[in-house]
Amino acid sequence: MDLLVKAMLEIEQLLVDLYGCEADLDDADFLLDTLRAAADAVGSKVVDEVVHRFSPVGVTVILILAETHISIHTWPEHGYAAVDVFVCGEGKDPNKAWDSLRGALKPESLEMKRLTRTIGETRL
Amino acid sequence: MDLLVKAMLEIEQLLVDLYGCEADLDDADFLLDTLRAAADAVGSKVVDEVVHRFSPVGVTVILILAETHISIHTWPEHGYAAVDVFVCGEGKDPNKAWDSLRGALKPESLEMKRLTRTIGETRL
Repeated sequence: MDLLVKAMLEIEQLLVDLYGCEADLDDADFLLDTLRAAADAVGSKVVDEVVHRFSPVGVTVILILAETHISIHTWPEHGYAAVDVFVCGEGKDPNKAWDSLRGALKPESLEMKRLTRTIGETRL
Repeated sequence: MDLLVKAMLEIEQLLVDLYGCEADLDDADFLLDTLRAAADAVGSKVVDEVVHRFSPVGVTVILILAETHISIHTWPEHGYAAVDVFVCGEGKDPNKAWDSLRGALKPESLEMKRLTRTIGETRL
């Protein structure tokens, strides 16, 4: 196959399932602060924020970064949270955001998936 | 290891890099409509939406679903878009959302990653 790939940037995305969290996963203000601290830890600029509270419990917080996002969805009744750290930008280390998140959420156990995405052009 | 895992729900998350898109990736209204159609295709309820336009080009749209999200980040100058389909809910098929997105965005090529996340409790 005569395929020319012109890659612009390879970035690592972290997707983490957190179980048995000690933190209050129904506290939207705390979760927003936690995500802001994570964005700060990785040196990413937050350009927009969305917070949604579910009834009777559960919160979604998503920070729109200069060009990608950090998100959390919580199920407080199970102590469970789903975190995605998708941080675009050369030299940005998503692990710094993750370390910050982990310290705040205090999971008993977790499962992390790491994947690499290539942002740019592919020409046939 | 004496580990009891109490799984609530296994869901499939799709993460797709789209290259050489024919669609106008700088048209925020079109992208919002495209994501709404994808949520509709999978039968998910949209509870919140965020649209952010970057300067000089580029758009992020995220739909908050009843409990997770569909997101797109675009780099129109490269014909590139990053799509995440994270649809929680028993019997919801994320491939229906993806088929809708693919039809609208018309990528020349793509790279899709599929992963399974377990939402629920883990007890030690």
